[in-house]
Amino acid sequence: MDGFVHRHTPPGTAPGVLSGRAPVVDEALDFTLVEYTAEECKILVGVEMDECRFHLGKAGRIWIDVAGRANSEMLQTLGTAFNLHPLALEDVFHAHQRSKLDIYGGQGFVVLNDPAYEEGEIRSRQVSVFFGQNYVISFHDHKLDIFKPVRDRLQATGSRLRTFGTDYLVYALIDLVVDRKFPLIESLAAHLEDLEDEALGHPTPTTLTSIHRARRALGIFHRIEWAERETILAVMRPETPFISADTRTYLRDCFDHSIAVLDLLDSYRDMTNGLAEVYLMQASNRMSEVMKTMALITVFFMPLSFLAGIYGMNFDRSVGNMPELGWPYGYAMFWGVAITIVTGLFVWLKRKRWL
Amino acid sequence: MDGFVHRHTPPGTAPGVLSGRAPVVDEALDFTLVEYTAEECKILVGVEMDECRFHLGKAGRIWIDVAGRANSEMLQTLGTAFNLHPLALEDVFHAHQRSKLDIYGGQGFVVLNDPAYEEGEIRSRQVSVFFGQNYVISFHDHKLDIFKPVRDRLQATGSRLRTFGTDYLVYALIDLVVDRKFPLIESLAAHLEDLEDEALGHPTPTTLTSIHRARRALGIFHRIEWAERETILAVMRPETPFISADTRTYLRDCFDHSIAVLDLLDSYRDMTNGLAEVYLMQASNRMSEVMKTMALITVFFMPLSFLAGIYGMNFDRSVGNMPELGWPYGYAMFWGVAITIVTGLFVWLKRKRWL
Amino acid sequence: MDGFVHRHTPPGTAPGVLSGRAPVVDEALDFTLVEYTAEECKILVGVEMDECRFHLGKAGRIWIDVAGRANSEMLQTLGTAFNLHPLALEDVFHAHQRSKLDIYGGQGFVVLNDPAYEEGEIRSRQVSVFFGQNYVISFHDHKLDIFKPVRDRLQATGSRLRTFGTDYLVYALIDLVVDRKFPLIESLAAHLEDLEDEALGHPTPTTLTSIHRARRALGIFHRIEWAERETILAVMRPETPFISADTRTYLRDCFDHSIAVLDLLDSYRDMTNGLAEVYLMQASNRMSEVMKTMALITVFFMPLSFLAGIYGMNFDRSVGNMPELGWPYGYAMFWGVAITIVTGLFVWLKRKRWL
Amino acid sequence: MDGFVHRHTPPGTAPGVLSGRAPVVDEALDFTLVEYTAEECKILVGVEMDECRFHLGKAGRIWIDVAGRANSEMLQTLGTAFNLHPLALEDVFHAHQRSKLDIYGGQGFVVLNDPAYEEGEIRSRQVSVFFGQNYVISFHDHKLDIFKPVRDRLQATGSRLRTFGTDYLVYALIDLVVDRKFPLIESLAAHLEDLEDEALGHPTPTTLTSIHRARRALGIFHRIEWAERETILAVMRPETPFISADTRTYLRDCFDHSIAVLDLLDSYRDMTNGLAEVYLMQASNRMSEVMKTMALITVFFMPLSFLAGIYGMNFDRSVGNMPELGWPYGYAMFWGVAITIVTGLFVWLKRKRWL
Amino acid sequence: MDGFVHRHTPPGTAPGVLSGRAPVVDEALDFTLVEYTAEECKILVGVEMDECRFHLGKAGRIWIDVAGRANSEMLQTLGTAFNLHPLALEDVFHAHQRSKLDIYGGQGFVVLNDPAYEEGEIRSRQVSVFFGQNYVISFHDHKLDIFKPVRDRLQATGSRLRTFGTDYLVYALIDLVVDRKFPLIESLAAHLEDLEDEALGHPTPTTLTSIHRARRALGIFHRIEWAERETILAVMRPETPFISADTRTYLRDCFDHSIAVLDLLDSYRDMTNGLAEVYLMQASNRMSEVMKTMALITVFFMPLSFLAGIYGMNFDRSVGNMPELGWPYGYAMFWGVAITIVTGLFVWLKRKRWL
Repeated sequence: MDGFVHRHTPPGTAPGVLSGRAPVVDEALDFTLVEYTAEECKILVGVEMDECRFHLGKAGRIWIDVAGRANSEMLQTLGTAFNLHPLALEDVFHAHQRSKLDIYGGQGFVVLNDPAYEEGEIRSRQVSVFFGQNYVISFHDHKLDIFKPVRDRLQATGSRLRTFGTDYLVYALIDLVVDRKFPLIESLAAHLEDLEDEALGHPTPTTLTSIHRARRALGIFHRIEWAERETILAVMRPETPFISADTRTYLRDCFDHSIAVLDLLDSYRDMTNGLAEVYLMQASNRMSEVMKTMALITVFFMPLSFLAGIYGMNFDRSVGNMPELGWPYGYAMFWGVAITIVTGLFVWLKRKRWL
Repeated sequence: MDGFVHRHTPPGTAPGVLSGRAPVVDEALDFTLVEYTAEECKILVGVEMDECRFHLGKAGRIWIDVAGRANSEMLQTLGTAFNLHPLALEDVFHAHQRSKLDIYGGQGFVVLNDPAYEEGEIRSRQVSVFFGQNYVISFHDHKLDIFKPVRDRLQATGSRLRTFGTDYLVYALIDLVVDRKFPLIESLAAHLEDLEDEALGHPTPTTLTSIHRARRALGIFHRIEWAERETILAVMRPETPFISADTRTYLRDCFDHSIAVLDLLDSYRDMTNGLAEVYLMQASNRMSEVMKTMALITVFFMPLSFLAGIYGMNFDRSVGNMPELGWPYGYAMFWGVAITIVTGLFVWLKRKRWL
Repeated sequence: MDGFVHRHTPPGTAPGVLSGRAPVVDEALDFTLVEYTAEECKILVGVEMDECRFHLGKAGRIWIDVAGRANSEMLQTLGTAFNLHPLALEDVFHAHQRSKLDIYGGQGFVVLNDPAYEEGEIRSRQVSVFFGQNYVISFHDHKLDIFKPVRDRLQATGSRLRTFGTDYLVYALIDLVVDRKFPLIESLAAHLEDLEDEALGHPTPTTLTSIHRARRALGIFHRIEWAERETILAVMRPETPFISADTRTYLRDCFDHSIAVLDLLDSYRDMTNGLAEVYLMQASNRMSEVMKTMALITVFFMPLSFLAGIYGMNFDRSVGNMPELGWPYGYAMFWGVAITIVTGLFVWLKRKRWL
Repeated sequence: MDGFVHRHTPPGTAPGVLSGRAPVVDEALDFTLVEYTAEECKILVGVEMDECRFHLGKAGRIWIDVAGRANSEMLQTLGTAFNLHPLALEDVFHAHQRSKLDIYGGQGFVVLNDPAYEEGEIRSRQVSVFFGQNYVISFHDHKLDIFKPVRDRLQATGSRLRTFGTDYLVYALIDLVVDRKFPLIESLAAHLEDLEDEALGHPTPTTLTSIHRARRALGIFHRIEWAERETILAVMRPETPFISADTRTYLRDCFDHSIAVLDLLDSYRDMTNGLAEVYLMQASNRMSEVMKTMALITVFFMPLSFLAGIYGMNFDRSVGNMPELGWPYGYAMFWGVAITIVTGLFVWLKRKRWL
Repeated sequence: MDGFVHRHTPPGTAPGVLSGRAPVVDEALDFTLVEYTAEECKILVGVEMDECRFHLGKAGRIWIDVAGRANSEMLQTLGTAFNLHPLALEDVFHAHQRSKLDIYGGQGFVVLNDPAYEEGEIRSRQVSVFFGQNYVISFHDHKLDIFKPVRDRLQATGSRLRTFGTDYLVYALIDLVVDRKFPLIESLAAHLEDLEDEALGHPTPTTLTSIHRARRALGIFHRIEWAERETILAVMRPETPFISADTRTYLRDCFDHSIAVLDLLDSYRDMTNGLAEVYLMQASNRMSEVMKTMALITVFFMPLSFLAGIYGMNFDRSVGNMPELGWPYGYAMFWGVAITIVTGLFVWLKRKRWL
């Protein structure tokens, strides 16, 4: 239930204080610095923070990508180095924030989510992007180099990323994070189709639990994407600083993708609800079949057993009781009656459509 | 589950790049060119793209219809030939887009959907329409000549299509795509009525699956039409370029039709939900009947079998046990008791309304 | 499922063309012409269309009521005679339109619905009203003289209908159509109360189907009234031409009635949902009782039958087996044990609250 | 189902006509007249209508309270005497109106609801309040003297009711009607808690019906209060005449109470839904226990009965069949086998957690 | 059902009168006075009310915290001492109010909720905050010193609490009350996880009741937080007096937290609904297994018992009946037939996937 885990500072802590229950992971952060103009693009992998700070002061466009989960001192240093608002830093620190756009004075701050689908659960992984006039600073908790495709495009001279401002870079990052949901949905879909086969074919007691888990994962995914959709809308608003009208056109495309994600999630939710019903139906059908078989056996054999029981009685034949027992063809007649009963029941049940 | 299939470029691809998973179908496209003024109308079927481009430059109104699914190079060429925005081209290329209106500079771009109902599933088929001051360029993935009725009307001198501008042609295309939903709904309805007969008459285990599939199809259909409704609203807005106030009046009529489609879909959804309940009820009724029959057999024969069992016991009559066995009319009395029990149970069950 | 039947022109037909699947009923239309001023009121029943046209040209207020379903030529003639917009005519022709207000140039056009409740189903019947400065033209598909009460009031000198303008007449017609829903709801309610008695008393397999049908009827009714409510709101808006502020006050009253209708429908929907649950509960209760009886019989007679079975065994008593069979009071003891078992079970079941 | 009963005039009746199905109750009305200024307050109980009319003309603030259900002539007379709008009078006459605010020229008209909870049902009882610059005229159908607390407060010199204008009196009446819902909810709550005990303890077949009835009552109550909430909002709006800004502050408090009522109703609705589920669960648990007991009996005794049946067979021992029957300890061995079977089943069932 | 308990004055009581059913708890109140400027901060614990009043008059910022539930006289005195609006005092007195913001003339009044989770139920505990230009007066019903963390931060020179105005203190209090929900949710979550284990492992009849209780608690919690979210939004609005733009930035952060709380509650609600379904499924699975075992026993032993019953019949072998009984290997053949039947049934059931 990772999506639910909440790390928070103790109530009453001053805002912006980076303490509390957040796990302080002491791993080195990976800094990637991209310095580019329309003419050239320099990429420095694995640089030190101080170098980043130095580049920030220079003219030209800068993009600093920070991969990994920083501890509080590191973040504090980064905050002062890059001039980030304490409230925004707190959001970077505590992770698992809802996607949103905040504007702090002369700086935009976008929180996005790049969730993972692991062991049937959606695990939220935060991506944070700060942006200003000429710089973009991105943070992501996981060490995966998710922004490589954008860096690659940046290296192509004449690409829109190079000719447009850093606002287009912000768009490219948002777009990438949104588009990364599609492969995720595909693996979810594959899992759901397996579940469908299972529910229609050989449902086991764990099938329903799996369906419930999938439903929950879809719910969490939907909430994540809904917040992202609202964030993109907010970024597209004319009053958002640094975002040009041209870039807004591209963001609208990105917004469409985010709606497509939501649409797909809605479809899969409908499907999952249907699956649960199909499963229950299947279970109930099997049960019905079992009961029907038992009922049939009972209906056929109870009267027959009673018949056999009668001729197993010990009434004194010497005083004239049970003359049937003495008839030469009594036993044959018994079988005749039994077969008649069976045939009669068979016809009757056939007519009632039980057989 | 075709409605769910999503084709997308790898995350991080530059917008407007026509690559990725979209199936590159290498079939020739069918170009149909209509050049018309209020006075005359020239229709050229099966023309080459170059000729289309040539006509675009001329005065007079032009409508180019492109049928079939283009590969990326073709689209690229078309894009530069007809001056289409790369983001719009991407939408044409990837198909299965949500219905929408986009305005790119001096060009309107409408995405519509002309879904098919095949094997119990709604298969989305995109229709894209570009429009400007004097031209309309329409794309549809399927090779069906769906726009023939509009072409026919264009040939009638004095028809509104001829006397009004190309915005009226845009309306006519949208209207046609919307109205094509009615026959679709009718076949859906016919299918649902069959299902209803099945559920009320002779439900089989597949009935529920069919109902679920129908429900899903209605859901997808509803989402498609809802987006289309919003698109028409957007086209009707006064700020949409090229659309005159006269045409807006007609679009409102088209909007009414789209609401009628949604209304019908709502009704069928209600009906389908009801169907599922009726089916479950029917199944449970059958089960109840089976159980009741078993219960009746048990209630009647268990006491009788016990009675027969008693007189099958071998207690030593010589020491005075079981004197009934020696009575002259013991056997007759046994039957008397049995018949009394049966009658008593019968009356009792009759009173309890079991019989 | 009349409410679902949709009659439409083939997709791609020019708007305003009166063709397609609409049943062309060839019955004579009934024209009723009312010409009135504050001082006098002249009512002409069964006039010809030409006469109507003639009166339209004159000064004074005119109300033409057309009863019955016209074929396309008739409507075309009417359209040109009375100067009605082709799109509005199309709506009159195809019937079963959603309630709405359209303004075509110098003419208002209101679509209302006067549904019938027949055989458990809501059958939509369209009422269309055109209005201008000094005239009202109403159409209704059914030949019932539904507007008689208004005509009667028109004849009373000094009545508000006479002293106010034709906008008040429009209000009066809308008000009448809305108020005609109350008796309809009452017959629906009577039907629902019968169903409630049935569900609580002696539910049959058809009860649920009836409940479902009622639910569907309520759903269709609700959709109809909801559209009507919106229409009245639209008519009340200050920008609607020809409607004076005084009449708006009365329309608000009419709007309240329409909300009252919706409120009642909501209540009945809740009730119907409750009914379905009560029905299912009742069915399940009956089933439970059946199973319980069977269980009781099994619990009592299975042990007894086993007991009797034991003493029906043929072990060789001569070698000392089954001495009980030879005891003088063996049989009496058998009965003692049987009665003890029965009593014990009885007490046990009593304590478990089964009996 | 009193909440559903609708009394209405026949469709097509002129608005403001006080006829139709409304029950014409011929009971004398109780008039209570309060004439007050900041300095003094005169209360006249049981006055005649003419006297009321006389006082209306005078300077000073007047509050006339009319208790009981008037017949149409009385209302007509009252209407002309007090100068009330015919549409408002119609609403007073027909009762069971939705709560609302209407402004007729120089007069405000508020409809409220003071429902009663009788025999598990919510019975709507209308309270109507007319207000102008210096007067308030209130009507309530029931003869209960519900406004006594306000009259008492009016008699206290210096109370806000005396120093403020009649708009504060209007507030006081609305507030009282809203607050009268709290004791009502409490009796509903007491009833629901009884039902909860019943559902968890000893559910009877009527429990579910009671739960359904409670749910319906809550639904009707919610609709009533929702309309009242909207009415208070409307009265609070700055454009409502006669209501001063000071009184608006108090109305906001009253609005909060009305939201509190809705909140409580929501909570009780959730609870009632939970109750129904608990009830069904309880029923299903009982059924399960019954079936389990039957299954246990069957599992234990069927094999035993078969065993006894074997040794009841009459194979001819003289030809060597069934030697067990002749063994000296054959009978003891039979019991040994029987006990082994029972023990084995017991252990097996214990392991499967059935016992 | 504490969340439902409503304490209210009798209907018709003048607003602001502190009487009625509210329990008058006669415990001493704890006053804590904080007087601070940017330079210094003086905290006085356990002061008298008079001293508080004295300090209110002085320059500098004042925060008075009142812990415990006051009786009506005390509140009245406090009201006049601190100049609080009677309607606000009424809200403080009656507790269990919905969270809200009211502005009374020159004073803001915020109602918050600091609920407790006790014995599976959410118990609402009101926190009220009055604020003006230079003072904050807070009330909380419980004697817990919940505001200690804020007091501690106030003592740190240079902290934002000291340098900013009292509006920042208001924010700090709201933030603390919101953040106190996180530990609450965690204990709820722990409880839900226990329930999940129970439902999946060893469900008892009380499990469902617990699930229902948890669902209800989540519902009440959600309503509380929703109101709080709206309150924070209201405080953030520019027209709210005394709140500076800087503080609004911090309030937005607090607003985010409140949305996070709602998000978590939504997730847990989904999970709880899933739990109930899993529980029911588990119960039904167990039942199915029981029925299946009974069915199997019946299917195997009924035919066998019938077979044994046949050879227990006493037909007279001397006239040629039942020759099988006399065959030398008759008994062995009986067993052969029995074993064949068992094997056949076994294979059949294996193929039907029952075994």
